[in-house]
Amino acid sequence: MQNKFFIEPLDEGLADALMDKINLKTKPLGSLGMLETLACQLGQIQQTLSPQICQPKMIVFAADHGIALEGVSAFPQEVTAQMVQNYLSGGAAVNVFCRQHDIALEIVDLGVKNLPAAEGLVSCKVDESTQSFLQADAMTPAQCQQAISIGAERVSLAYKQGSNVVAFGEMGIANTASAAALMAGCLNIDVADCVGRGTGLDDVGLVHKITILQQAMSYHQGEYSAEQWLAKVGGFELAAMVGAMLQAAQQRMVILVDGFICSAAALVARQMAPLVTQYMVFCHQSAEHAHQRLLDALGAKPLLGLSLRLGEGSGAALAFPLVQSASLFLNEMASFAAAGVSREHD
Amino acid sequence: MQNKFFIEPLDEGLADALMDKINLKTKPLGSLGMLETLACQLGQIQQTLSPQICQPKMIVFAADHGIALEGVSAFPQEVTAQMVQNYLSGGAAVNVFCRQHDIALEIVDLGVKNLPAAEGLVSCKVDESTQSFLQADAMTPAQCQQAISIGAERVSLAYKQGSNVVAFGEMGIANTASAAALMAGCLNIDVADCVGRGTGLDDVGLVHKITILQQAMSYHQGEYSAEQWLAKVGGFELAAMVGAMLQAAQQRMVILVDGFICSAAALVARQMAPLVTQYMVFCHQSAEHAHQRLLDALGAKPLLGLSLRLGEGSGAALAFPLVQSASLFLNEMASFAAAGVSREHD
Repeated sequence: MQNKFFIEPLDEGLADALMDKINLKTKPLGSLGMLETLACQLGQIQQTLSPQICQPKMIVFAADHGIALEGVSAFPQEVTAQMVQNYLSGGAAVNVFCRQHDIALEIVDLGVKNLPAAEGLVSCKVDESTQSFLQADAMTPAQCQQAISIGAERVSLAYKQGSNVVAFGEMGIANTASAAALMAGCLNIDVADCVGRGTGLDDVGLVHKITILQQAMSYHQGEYSAEQWLAKVGGFELAAMVGAMLQAAQQRMVILVDGFICSAAALVARQMAPLVTQYMVFCHQSAEHAHQRLLDALGAKPLLGLSLRLGEGSGAALAFPLVQSASLFLNEMASFAAAGVSREHD
Repeated sequence: MQNKFFIEPLDEGLADALMDKINLKTKPLGSLGMLETLACQLGQIQQTLSPQICQPKMIVFAADHGIALEGVSAFPQEVTAQMVQNYLSGGAAVNVFCRQHDIALEIVDLGVKNLPAAEGLVSCKVDESTQSFLQADAMTPAQCQQAISIGAERVSLAYKQGSNVVAFGEMGIANTASAAALMAGCLNIDVADCVGRGTGLDDVGLVHKITILQQAMSYHQGEYSAEQWLAKVGGFELAAMVGAMLQAAQQRMVILVDGFICSAAALVARQMAPLVTQYMVFCHQSAEHAHQRLLDALGAKPLLGLSLRLGEGSGAALAFPLVQSASLFLNEMASFAAAGVSREHD
């Protein structure tokens, strides 16, 4: 059950045509800043001078982490299941922001403890939880492949239903620990430089988290591929996001990347298929300590910097209207010629 | 015709109650970052734990500047009138973003050359243009008062029509030069530190703009109030924005501040009535060179940093959904107790 993804590079020639169109709009050259770069990327992804945002979809992948039992999170493990219930009731931040922007929301259970099937929940349990990666692999290679496939399938379905923009969120107590370990493994850097306070550890908790992760990385030391790191220290929701991102790029969909944990999945996806990042819009720089370094490693300049650190796709939902704006100005603004507006002095 | 504004300070006690409400929401403490500060401000402005955004309004003030004839802009002066026509036809960036977010748009002519009355245009000409402030005052004190009053009246009308959030934009070729001079005068700093490329001057143009502004500031040297500086080196649209901001604060409306030129008006308004900034949401940090310094002087941390430098209120319109999000999460997110979600470990 090996997943294969075929991702096409974006057309650089089209970028020139898109910039020509942008430069004829009634505004000073370059004055829409990052929205111009984004509009150009949207056009290249959709292979058109008039990109459209259709049926945006947010998929939140949820799973539990064995490493949570080592006390690396400010919250107890049962919060994963409780928060999924909260999503199903519509009371979480991601619900509010998706409703605001007409983003369809789907919740996928990859392996949340004590979470029964429920209406509105896509139940695709790989297992009850990952193993603690302190002294074992978080999952088997087969489980990792299975989670990747589930993520890819959810995106395929969204695509078939008419979506061309997909955002990903995650829920899983202790998943900043897993993401930090993934980042350290994939970038071959000290895990201490990848650790942050997650949902709000105090100083003592942070030191404990670093100690646990250093022990774990010492157990797992060696040279591995990104996919191997994903099985060793990742999570089911992280693996699902990796599969989802790769599938979205294969289907030329725009990928909205949320915060630290999504960026760790993006890093794995990029090491598996470098072209995938051409389809990604990095939505915000999180307040989580290592996110800036992770974004730098990805060469990413995110749209927002609001000191968010909530996860669950909330930052991607908040950035979505900017993606819409980029498409709209490209389609709807008048050109200098059409509006009868004079150009710059020679 | 002296304008007086009575602005109440925000209730600090209510801030505590708002933060208590925010901290009970199902999310890690502080994890919505700047949106939490913003939600708290919205509640304080509206004197409620459940702030609502009603009938958002964008008012774009347009006027011509005598200083434009000194060659301080990349665009010829007739572009002011041409761009107003573009607004009336719906083809400018501010039109696109206001349509996207259901923000009502009003265009006010304070003194645009060769711009006849037209359907959809609020025509309130103070004069055909300001004087060049190179060797004269841009306007008389009476004209300045008149422009301030017009701005205040437009806001009063919006308020009567049910709006509680108002954004301001501006159009006026050479108005970054005027804003730079205002900033230098009001902060008593070297005008060279307040000058940027505006709509896109090249290096030679930038040096010329600095030279002209240094000559002008040398002509106007002295100690003056912010309102006196406004008459000496400001513009009709800048004065209208000052009046509009003061009136909006008096009526406890949320004020969305756009980029460099709006921030210069905010600076004047603050020197006239310091409490006005409590009602302001700074929407974005512009790519215009001196905007960071101006924001620092105002103690402002803007929501967006997209390297915009378009003006006309476009950045305020782009930031508007974040203001909506702040109000929505405060009203719609479930509390830990209501959702049955466990809190942090002790």
